[in-house]
Amino acid sequence: MKTIDKTMRLLSFFTPSQPEIGLSELARMAEMDKATTRRILVSLGKHHFIEQNQITKAYRLGSGFLHLARVREATTPITAIATQTVEWLCDCTRETAHASVGSPNALITIAHKEPQRGTVVMIDPTEPLPFHATASGIVFLAFNDADLLENLLKKPLKKHTDHTEIDPDAVRARVAKARRDGYYLNEHGFESDVAGLAAPYLNADGTAAGAIAVAMPTTRKTDEQIHMVKQHVAAASARITTAIGGVVHPSIQKLIV
Amino acid sequence: MKTIDKTMRLLSFFTPSQPEIGLSELARMAEMDKATTRRILVSLGKHHFIEQNQITKAYRLGSGFLHLARVREATTPITAIATQTVEWLCDCTRETAHASVGSPNALITIAHKEPQRGTVVMIDPTEPLPFHATASGIVFLAFNDADLLENLLKKPLKKHTDHTEIDPDAVRARVAKARRDGYYLNEHGFESDVAGLAAPYLNADGTAAGAIAVAMPTTRKTDEQIHMVKQHVAAASARITTAIGGVVHPSIQKLIV
Repeated sequence: MKTIDKTMRLLSFFTPSQPEIGLSELARMAEMDKATTRRILVSLGKHHFIEQNQITKAYRLGSGFLHLARVREATTPITAIATQTVEWLCDCTRETAHASVGSPNALITIAHKEPQRGTVVMIDPTEPLPFHATASGIVFLAFNDADLLENLLKKPLKKHTDHTEIDPDAVRARVAKARRDGYYLNEHGFESDVAGLAAPYLNADGTAAGAIAVAMPTTRKTDEQIHMVKQHVAAASARITTAIGGVVHPSIQKLIV
Repeated sequence: MKTIDKTMRLLSFFTPSQPEIGLSELARMAEMDKATTRRILVSLGKHHFIEQNQITKAYRLGSGFLHLARVREATTPITAIATQTVEWLCDCTRETAHASVGSPNALITIAHKEPQRGTVVMIDPTEPLPFHATASGIVFLAFNDADLLENLLKKPLKKHTDHTEIDPDAVRARVAKARRDGYYLNEHGFESDVAGLAAPYLNADGTAAGAIAVAMPTTRKTDEQIHMVKQHVAAASARITTAIGGVVHPSIQKLIV
């Protein structure tokens, strides 16, 4: 099923920051020839999964995904559950809470809430969360196929701050730690002076569907605070996992107490 | 690209009323052999577009669609626009308004609002709207590929009420009328004593992405009422079409004035 792999690969290049892509650019990104790329796009277009901007001739995702996303939500309502859970997590911790869902290249925010207080971390929900630079990304990698991690490490990683870890072995070590611990605490990796603590929520097959996290100014990062946040993030992860028909991982269960 | 057609066909069988399907059942529905069906499902599973219920072993859509739907909404925010427009349409007409998006087999409701008054038509947002039996379906067929209509007419049509039109030629005539008029008024076709008036909203390539409609008790169906509803539905259609980057069709433009 090479065609399906190629098709899914093409779809994965469309992101909120790059929603429209021209044919040549897309073929280049996918490392495929233009004729094949075009044939796949035309097939997808027939089923309303791809459409063309009539002015620029660039391609963008079609309305077909709205329907499939609604069917998915009808069975396993991640968005609704994530929204409720994020509100609860924010209210309990008095810190910014956010939930994200996995895509092939990054995590996409599906719910977020900032607390009412002086210093808070603001979330831009349209900004994808890079795997290597965020706590959410590290836990997502930790509970997914090793291929996802290894493919990511094939290309040079981007430095988002002076502290972003971009050494492949160091990233592997972080992912292994997250796998053991069931959560990950990341500091200054994506934004300076921000600490993120995330746990994955799991699909029925035990792989991560996404992550739930708390982001706080590093100035508030005491042992006591981290302990409190960790317990609540783990409880939030268990809540979403259970709601979407997954089984809570023992390492996460252990954190809740 | 036969594989893409087969894949999209498999995906189209998952609906809010049948969100999980076993392998044998799915192969039977798609008229494909079990080995091919399974290979496609495994490929889709690798990319999180399909997952298996670990208890029943039935397949359901995966979380991959949530991400793609969000990317699509970031460019062309149908759901947000449809929700606002449906509220406006309901407030103006004092009748039930609803917007739907096309899928290969039916329309799926994405927004609806009932007015505050004595007799109103209630909408079940999880119920797919069959193409042949609803005003929304007829206008969706009218502004899409003729193949969609002809494929639909290959199988016997379902009678939803005593008045549902199931004769292929009569359905063709209705679709042709909707194409000319830019809207369609359907009575008793899906539910008894309900009249629906719908107009399509259009993608950038001029095909219908979905429909916007008003549903009212047939007892209120005077010429004056229909005229008022038609103008508002056309205006709502133009509003959504423009917002998603489409061009308003002349036949719909003409109705607004």
